[in-house]
Parts: sequence; C-alpha cells; structure tokens
Amino acid sequence: MTTTTESFAKLCSSAVTDDATPIKSLVFKPKTPKSATPIPIVVIALQSTTTPSSLIAQLTGTKDPRLAKDDLIKTFFAAPSAGEFNLGHLLNNSTSEYHLLIDQHLVDLKDSTILKLNGNLFIEKSKAIEYLNELKVAKLQSNIDFTTEVKPQNTSKQQPKDKKEKKALAPSNATLEDAKLIGITVDKALDFPGWYQQVLTKGEMLDYYDVSGCYILRPTSYAIWENIQTYFDSKIKKMGVRNAYFPMFVSSRVLEKEKDHIEGFAPEVAWVTKAGSSDLEEPVAIRPTSETVIYPYYAKWVQSHRDLPLRLNQWCSVVRWEFKHPQPFLRTREFLWQEGHTAFLSEEEAKEEVLEILHHYANIYKELLAVPVVQGKKTEKEKFAGASFTTTVEGYIPQTGRGIQGGTSHHLGQNFSKMFNLSVENPLGSEHPKVFAYQNSWGLSTRSIGVMVMVHSDNKGLVIPPRVAENQAVIIPVGITKKTSIEQRELIHESAKEIEAQLRKNDIRVFGDYNDNYTPGWKFSQYELKGIPLRIELGPKDFEKQQVVVVRRNDSKKIIVPISELTETLPKIMDDMHEVMYQKAKDAFDTHRVTIHDWKDFVPTLNKKNVIVAPWCGVMECEEDIKDSSARKDDGEEFEVDEKAPSMGAKSLCIPFEQPTMKDGQKCIKCNRNAVNYCMFGRSY
Amino acid sequence: MTTTTESFAKLCSSAVTDDATPIKSLVFKPKTPKSATPIPIVVIALQSTTTPSSLIAQLTGTKDPRLAKDDLIKTFFAAPSAGEFNLGHLLNNSTSEYHLLIDQHLVDLKDSTILKLNGNLFIEKSKAIEYLNELKVAKLQSNIDFTTEVKPQNTSKQQPKDKKEKKALAPSNATLEDAKLIGITVDKALDFPGWYQQVLTKGEMLDYYDVSGCYILRPTSYAIWENIQTYFDSKIKKMGVRNAYFPMFVSSRVLEKEKDHIEGFAPEVAWVTKAGSSDLEEPVAIRPTSETVIYPYYAKWVQSHRDLPLRLNQWCSVVRWEFKHPQPFLRTREFLWQEGHTAFLSEEEAKEEVLEILHHYANIYKELLAVPVVQGKKTEKEKFAGASFTTTVEGYIPQTGRGIQGGTSHHLGQNFSKMFNLSVENPLGSEHPKVFAYQNSWGLSTRSIGVMVMVHSDNKGLVIPPRVAENQAVIIPVGITKKTSIEQRELIHESAKEIEAQLRKNDIRVFGDYNDNYTPGWKFSQYELKGIPLRIELGPKDFEKQQVVVVRRNDSKKIIVPISELTETLPKIMDDMHEVMYQKAKDAFDTHRVTIHDWKDFVPTLNKKNVIVAPWCGVMECEEDIKDSSARKDDGEEFEVDEKAPSMGAKSLCIPFEQPTMKDGQKCIKCNRNAVNYCMFGRSY
Repeated sequence: MTTTTESFAKLCSSAVTDDATPIKSLVFKPKTPKSATPIPIVVIALQSTTTPSSLIAQLTGTKDPRLAKDDLIKTFFAAPSAGEFNLGHLLNNSTSEYHLLIDQHLVDLKDSTILKLNGNLFIEKSKAIEYLNELKVAKLQSNIDFTTEVKPQNTSKQQPKDKKEKKALAPSNATLEDAKLIGITVDKALDFPGWYQQVLTKGEMLDYYDVSGCYILRPTSYAIWENIQTYFDSKIKKMGVRNAYFPMFVSSRVLEKEKDHIEGFAPEVAWVTKAGSSDLEEPVAIRPTSETVIYPYYAKWVQSHRDLPLRLNQWCSVVRWEFKHPQPFLRTREFLWQEGHTAFLSEEEAKEEVLEILHHYANIYKELLAVPVVQGKKTEKEKFAGASFTTTVEGYIPQTGRGIQGGTSHHLGQNFSKMFNLSVENPLGSEHPKVFAYQNSWGLSTRSIGVMVMVHSDNKGLVIPPRVAENQAVIIPVGITKKTSIEQRELIHESAKEIEAQLRKNDIRVFGDYNDNYTPGWKFSQYELKGIPLRIELGPKDFEKQQVVVVRRNDSKKIIVPISELTETLPKIMDDMHEVMYQKAKDAFDTHRVTIHDWKDFVPTLNKKNVIVAPWCGVMECEEDIKDSSARKDDGEEFEVDEKAPSMGAKSLCIPFEQPTMKDGQKCIKCNRNAVNYCMFGRSY
Repeated sequence: MTTTTESFAKLCSSAVTDDATPIKSLVFKPKTPKSATPIPIVVIALQSTTTPSSLIAQLTGTKDPRLAKDDLIKTFFAAPSAGEFNLGHLLNNSTSEYHLLIDQHLVDLKDSTILKLNGNLFIEKSKAIEYLNELKVAKLQSNIDFTTEVKPQNTSKQQPKDKKEKKALAPSNATLEDAKLIGITVDKALDFPGWYQQVLTKGEMLDYYDVSGCYILRPTSYAIWENIQTYFDSKIKKMGVRNAYFPMFVSSRVLEKEKDHIEGFAPEVAWVTKAGSSDLEEPVAIRPTSETVIYPYYAKWVQSHRDLPLRLNQWCSVVRWEFKHPQPFLRTREFLWQEGHTAFLSEEEAKEEVLEILHHYANIYKELLAVPVVQGKKTEKEKFAGASFTTTVEGYIPQTGRGIQGGTSHHLGQNFSKMFNLSVENPLGSEHPKVFAYQNSWGLSTRSIGVMVMVHSDNKGLVIPPRVAENQAVIIPVGITKKTSIEQRELIHESAKEIEAQLRKNDIRVFGDYNDNYTPGWKFSQYELKGIPLRIELGPKDFEKQQVVVVRRNDSKKIIVPISELTETLPKIMDDMHEVMYQKAKDAFDTHRVTIHDWKDFVPTLNKKNVIVAPWCGVMECEEDIKDSSARKDDGEEFEVDEKAPSMGAKSLCIPFEQPTMKDGQKCIKCNRNAVNYCMFGRSY
C-alpha cells in the first residue's frame, strides 16, 4: 500500500464543488453467529444508486446484511460513526477482511468527475478509483450493476405479450427490451431513500435536474399542486384574501431590515451580481420569503385604519440555497409555495386568521392528500425568524419514524410593522398613540407532495389519493384473446369509450388505454407505477353482464359495478378509498405517537420509529439538551435505513393544541422543572 | 459661469449605476406668433414626475407649451435632438433667454443620489444642482411642485360631504385632506407616459418597486392575469397540453448550447454567483426563457415515437435584465408569462399547433381584453432567436401610433432537437434515418395587461373590460339626503344588499359601497379611477319604481334596468360594453393601418401615428434600410408626447396573414426589387 491516511486527505479537496456527484460509502453487517467475527461489506456507490440488501447478500454470499452500527464501524475502520464513514477510512483497516463492492455507475463516470464524499470532502473520480485499487482488497468486486435485481413475482405480467410480435408492431420501442427496469426495484421497507427516488422518477412525478438541489415537476406532480391551489385559493378568496405578485428580487438594504429575520435566512440567500457580462452596481437577492419585499409597500399603501385589514397572497417560487443534502420535494433550492401576508388593526383579528389558515392547511393534508397531521404551536426555538409565534401542521413518515413540518402559519405581532413603520393613526383619535399593524404570514409548499408520496406509495409505485390525482381512473379492456371475435372486441372497445365519455362529462378525470400492443397485465403494472387511483376493467363477460370491475390502487380491492351505475358509484368509491387511505395513515401516526413521562423511555421509544409526546418545561436550554441527549444513542434493535437518521437528535415538533391532561406537579421529561405542557418531539426532516 | 461644456462632462460619469435615479430634461415651446422668437421652457425633473403642460403654461405665463422639435433644440442648445438633450446642453446657450423649471422632488433628493441623464451619463445630485445654479438663468424657478395642479371641474364631487363631519366620524383619514391628488392629473393626449404611470398607480394596478425595472402587480392587475390564465389554460388543456414546472436556474453549459438562441439572450441574462457569503463554484443563470432548460429532458424522456407529441406548458416568471428604459408591463426585468414547449413527430402537426395557439392569443386580446390585433409572421430579422419561423399577434397604441407585439408562437423546426438530440427511431423501421422532433414554443406575458390599459383607459382612470375585471360592478346607493327618512335609507341599503347577493349568486363579480362617509360623487370618481366596468345606482325614486340605473365605465352610457331583470340583463350589458370597447379600438387600429405603395408617403404617414402596410421585397438589408431611412424624420405637424419616439425608425411588425391583393410586377416600397408580400411596418415598443 502506497497511500497513508494523511495522503488520502491530500487526494481530496474541501473546496465546495457545487455540481459534484455525491457518492455514498456504506458498511453492512451480515447476520453472523454471536460467536463469530462478522465480515463487513463496504459498498461504494453513487448516492443515486439504490443498493438493495438482497442483492448485496447474493453478491457476497451472506445472509441478511444490514447497515452496520457505529461500534462495528469504529472497530473495523476507526471512523467516528456510520454517518461520517467514507472511503478514506478503509486505510485504517489493513489486517482484517472485508468485502468491497463498487458501483458500476461510479466506475463509468468520466475520470475528471468530482465526487462528493461524507464530511464534505471532494475527490476526482480517477483518483478515487486508483486509491481503491491500491488498497488491494481481496474480496473486491468492482463494476457492480445494482440495478440487475429482478423481482421474481409478476414478471410474466410485466412483460409484453410476445416479444417478437411486439417487435414487429413497434420496431423502435427499446423500452420493452428492458421492461425489468420499468418497475420499482427496491423495497420501501429496506431502502427507503432508494425507493423514494425510484417511485418519483419511474412514476414520472419528478426528474433530477442538472443544477444541484433543483428538480423538475413533471405533469403528474404539478397537477397535484394545481389541485391544492384550486382548493386553497377558493378558501382564502372567501376569507377576503386577494392574490398579487411581488418581484422575486430584493435589495440587500430591504432584506436586512428585520435583524432576527435576516439572521434566519442570510446563509441561504442566492445573490445576483451580474447581468450579461456587466457586474451589477449593487447585488440583488432572490427572495427566500417575501416579508421584507412586501412590507415596505404595505406601509405605503396603508394610510388609514380603513385600509386595514390588508390581506394578500402570492403563488410563486422562492429560493433557499441550502448546502445540506437536497431531497426531492422536501429540501430543494427552489420550491413552489403560496405565501400569505396580512395586516390587521387588532391583534385578535390577526390571531383568529392564523388559526383559520392553519385549519385550511390541516384540511389540505386530510381532505386532499389523505395525510394525518397534528396541529400545534412551535416552541420559541423552532418558530419562524422574526415571528411572535408560529403554528404548524406536523406529519409523520412511518418508514423513518421521523416527523415532518407540513405548513406554517405565523403571527408576526408588531415586529415587522414597527421595523417598516406599517402604522395608522389611532381610530380613537390622534391624541392616542398611533397603532402598528398586527401581521401574519403563512405558507405551504410543494413539500406537501413529498409527504403524500412517502406516506401512501408502495413497492408497486405511486399511490395518489383520488381528489388530487391528475387522472382518477384508467379504463382497460381485458380478457380479449385470440378466440375473441373482431365484432366482440369492437363492441368492448366502443363500450369502454362510451363509459369514458360519460364519466368525463361528469367531471371524473378518466382516460382509456386501448392499445392492443400491450397485455392488460403490462398496462396494470404501468398504471400502478403511476399511481392512477382506479382501474376500470371491461372484459367480454363483464360486457355481457353490462358491468365493469373497478380496482382500487391503494388496496387492490375489486368492486363490481353495473355500467349504468358507474357515474354515480365512482365518486363514492373514491371517497371511500380516500377515507381508507387516510385511516391507514392515521393509524400509523397514532400508533407511533407515544406519550411518555420518563426520560429513560425517551431514546428507546424514539428508536422504535416513534415520535414522542412528553411533559416539558418550555425552557429553550432544556430543548437543546433533549436534542443532544437523544443524538447518537441508537442502541435499539431496529436499524435505520436512512444513513443520516441514526445520529440525529430529537427536535421539538410542536406543542399540540390537543393536550393530554397534565397531572398536578408533573415534572418535565428531561429536567427538574415543572412541566408547562406536553410537547411533541421527534427526529425530523 | 465657471463651467465649460467639457467640464460638465467631467462632472459626470459614464459608468452604469444600476440604481441611479433617472431624470428627464425636456424642452417646451409655447405657442408664439410666427413673427416672434419663441422663448423655450426647459424642465428638469425626475423621470417619475409628471409635468403637465397646463401647469407649465401657468408657471411661465405662456400659452399652450408643447414639446419642442429637434430644430428648435438644435438652434437654442446645439443638442443633436430632443431625445439626446440633457442639462449639459444648457451651457451652449449663454445669451438668449429661456425658462428653467426644476422639480422639487429632484431638489429634495439626498445630495449623494446619482442621477441618470440622457445619453447614459450619471451625475451626483449635489453637483447637478450646483451646476444649474451656476448657470444663473434669469427665468429660473426651482422647487416646482408639479403635483399641485388641481382639475377645476368636479372638485365638489370629489370632496367628502363635509370635512368636519367626516373628521368626527373618521378622525385619522389623511387621504381626504389631499383628495385632489386622488384623481388623474395629466391628460392622456398630452402626456401619455405621465398619464400611463398615474393611471396604473392611482388605479392600484401596479406599484413601482425599489429594484429598478421590477414592478408590483397589485390585486387589480393580478386578477386580470388570473382571468387570462383560466381562459388559456382550459384551451390548451383541451388540446392535450399538460402543465409542469421546470427550475428557474440554468447552468451556463446548457444555456449556451444553441448558439443563435444564446446570442439573442446573452446580454440580458442575470447570473447568480453567490449563496450566503460563499461564491458558487459555477455561476447559474436565471431563465430568460426555458428552451434550453427543458429540451435536454425532452431528449431523455422521448425514447420512442410513441412518446410524441410531448406538449408541456408552464406558468412562471422569467428574467431579462434589460438596460433599456423600463416600462410597467411593457418592458420589465422580471415578468410573468406562460411558455409552451412542444415536440412532434411530423412538421405538419407542429405547424398546425403554432397557428392554433396564435388563434388563442388573438382571442385573449379580442374576447377578453377587447383589443384588436393583427395576426402574421415575423420577418427573418425579427423572428425568435433559434426559431424556424415566428408567428405573432400585433397590437396598436393610438396615442403614440406605435405597434406592439402581443404574443408569439414559434415553430422551432429541428434546430433545437438537433442540438439536444431529441430524436426517435424512424417509425418506418430502423433502416431509415432517425427522426429529430419538430418543435414549437409559444409565450404570452403580462405585457398584454399594459396594452389593454393603454388602449382603453382614459383621463378618469382605468377602464377594464368586464370579462377580465376583478370586480365587474359596484352598487352605490344614491340620492339619500337629509330629508330621506331613516326607514327609507334602510330600505334602499337592504335592497342594494339583496341585489348584490343575487348577482353574486349568478357569478357576477359585484360589491357594494354603503359607506355613508363619502358622497356618491366621490365614490363615482373612485370607482371610475379603478376602472370598475359597471356602476349600479339605486336611489329613492329608483327604489319606488323597483329599478336601478346602470352606468357603463367606458362611455358613461346609462341604462335603466328593472331590478327583477338585472341578473339576466347585466351579462348582456357587459357583452355589449365589451363589443363597443372592441369596436372603438378596432376602428382606431383600422383607421391608422394605412396601405401605401410609394416610399415618399412612408415617413409622413408614419408621423401621423399610423402603422403602414406596404409591398415589400422580403430582403433583410432592405428592412434595415427602411428602419434607418424612417428614423429622425419627424417633420409632420403632430408632435410626439413620448420623447423617445420621434427618433425611432420603423421596424417590420409582421407579414399579416390577411394580405391585400398584390398586383403583377409590384415593386418593393423601398428598393427596386419585386415585392413578395405586404408587410406591416411601424414604430414599436
């Protein structure tokens, strides 16, 4: 070996390379008898490559490999934790055996590609490969194609009827040759991040974009956003809110006016400094949110108390140039949202609106996305920068056991109105002091779509709740064989088209797939992958009985419906489907929201993928203590599939509005102070 | 005088200061007997200050001052043209008399403010004032408040009933004290740019923003945009177009892929180079349009001819950092638009769509905005950068006689598909060459709202066509005097509210103003200013007869309608009103679209605020020649209110689809070549 630990660092650079290709360095531990020493398996792969443990087992001839815990990684590679492990640590092991699997997609990259490792290290791909080769690991397998795994079940359904026949009819369709790649190839339960990526890209919700942290919202996801827009827009317009559009640019002078606020956003602000080839005299920021964009004009427009309330909303995109690992929908550098900004004469009116909006947010989740949320108030530590208080809807992702903020409605008090002099003469008379407006701001973003996908979708692909799906149903003729007469086939197709037209006339979003080149089974898989809520099957026997078979995407439940009743029945089926999806998700959240009173239960409960409701003193230092004390304590039985999660401490998610009854003298879960209310804690996104 | 021409230049800088305050230097010539020498009036004012000629007349004791033509400016100040005149030229006149009026708003600026003069010169405010003082002009009036002008007519109407009473009821309303400032104070015919600014800001369509070239779309204008969106969105969705959202950022590598295209946009591209306090490794551009953002992904998604057509649209904002003088709606650095991007297997399908979209654009103008447009094709010189051809809808602004591009639908041919390798195997078989997709892109922006305002609005304020107005009607109780009994007053208010509820139930966008603190006349002025299409008056006598008086904003036409028929009649009144507005605008356009065949008529016709339809050879050099030859030839009788217009040459606006019959052997209007078709030329925005 010619390289030392120090020289590995020398191969790397710590200068942030914005378009570097992130790679992951994972250590797996196979199931090993307690008496034996395990042989770790190191996987070096592109971040975007999913590395199913079943395939790893097959490749290494081991049983049930799982992500190794910190202690094993410390023992074998002297790395501080799994989260910090990278390929440099392999140098620390020159004696004991381990497997080393290298992703073919990584090997295939151009030599000059910059790779991003854990610990914010950057290395040229050619140097990384050379380094790995120089390690001369005995059990090395390079060029692994992690996508080769094929699910054994259902393959016949997923294949076209007959390859040769297919070929003749459609000579140019290369897709069919690798039909195995069409479906989801990773298990939601085993590799959640890999599954999430596949379900989004293969379901055609989203595509990755060549500017890091930005994603393309394809029509399937944008249609969901449009449905959310339509719903919320009509609610706020009824409240008297009007839409407007403010510029995306902010001058630094204005941006920095509210100090707490800018402190919260400054590190993530993107700056335009050039136009064409000229430098701008003064750089302008792209809005990370629009409080400081809007309020100078509110101050100008509001001249009298009769100009209040002033309630505007805008649908736009905002930019927060985060350097943390981006995640589609959940953490992106540009995202779509609405932001409402309102100003009132009285505190009461303002506070009333804060809750009214929060209620609409909760209903977007419940009534549109079939996702349960807990409504509550953020702690002082977690509130919006510059707000008086923040209310929130908090969701829950069962696979990771993590909480996720779903939308926030802030009461800003008079903090901003005092900074921007948004004030009016006192309606009681000019001898009374002038009144600074009481303000709110509230926002909900496309993150909601990510939550919806994580909660409902499965190993067959997307599951989209019917109220927000671009297409609610697909009609597929079935049971047409070589024995079926041409007349009968025609009759079925015509009948299907009539049904389609009839449903569409009744505002049910439906389409038919009458393409004879694909088997019904292949189509079933396709539309399951894309999450179409209902499949309507019409075969010769159905036609005879003048009925169809309706199959629900979420639970495969089949319902036979007479054609004459379809228009009336379908909305009911969808409502029931929505309810079933919601209840299932709610059960998962309810089961994993555990109320505890003893600190000793805190981390073990957390490690069982729960969020915790616990009595709490309300002191910020105690909250920080809880976070620190719950980090890196993953000693439970379960392992986390997201390599980032185990090291994460629990944050306060919210103080739920619905509070358990507090007994007299109840102490805080963590410290010796008296509890003031129950707070919901959890690992979070 | 201590300063010389050269030293004035030394006071200035030519370095572009992005947030400089633009000022205007205008020369007026009062009506003077032919025998007498006129005494010019020089006005130095903020660009944003409107300088009504009636006030100038009053201040200088002159008659009918109008913007001076180039010859006068040359004679008195040796400036090349009115458009190039700035305060430096005052040095050239040390003998003859002239008036010098200086805007108080300019004097009030901070001393360190940088002023932007004509000719891209920049000067510190303190230096400019010092310079002006040193000129020791006899007829100097500094600190002029150009806003003091009050229209004499209607002032009693515009005042609140009784100031004292008002005060007691609403002590804090400062607005009433300066009610004279509420209405439009400049004449559309005399100071079109000043009028345009007032009508937009006082009508609450838009506000100026502290980043130059960016404007705030207030609810009144955004609602118009929403109505355009709803209309167009439903049209394209019926065509099979789906909405999506692509990131606003583009990497330079991708942006620069299509050379013609990037050449067209490069000088205006805004670049993000910093995030927080760190420099980005590689700057990213903000989309000026999304061809290059989108097409790499089309190339990826389209794997087979069955993936075509691919038709997506997005509603978003784009950024073009122009350094030309910005104008609300018409030329702004960020603007809202939709951009459609489609790819087809065959050229025919693509070309068919281009025209279908153009037809929808023409209908947005005709059916929603009541604005006539001419449909046609752009010349090679004026087509979209990278397109095969561009089709366009062209509007006309009567006050300036200038054409304005209203929306464009481009056929891109295979230019982009070849660059981005958007191709499929030939459906005829793989032995045939692969097929590059035929592409279109098409866009319509908020500029359309600016055209609508310029065409319809008047000296009382905005006139908004009823189909796009946020509020279509306002109900105002009238004729209530001190003699009116409380019961009767109550009855009228109740009846008005019932009418309001009834109309609203029938999807007529209506509101009532029942505020007793303002006179009906004051309210009339208010809602005329804001462009509410219909005013519904209900007074005691109307109530007796169970009728209302409906007054149309566009022509003050009064229609008496029985209350029982209102729901049915109002939509008809609005349709008729729309038709009248459209016809009036169409008559203006038709009258000022003049077909000529002789070059000698060209410039005189142009100078009479016409656009020209003329036989043309289709050669690009000839088009450039026409532009050059028609520039700075303003020898007509009329003077241009926009100081930028007179020096402008005529561009080709489009080759109209509707062509006059061409006679055999017809020559080009300008050169000796044969004409190939009639082309529409004009000064333009």
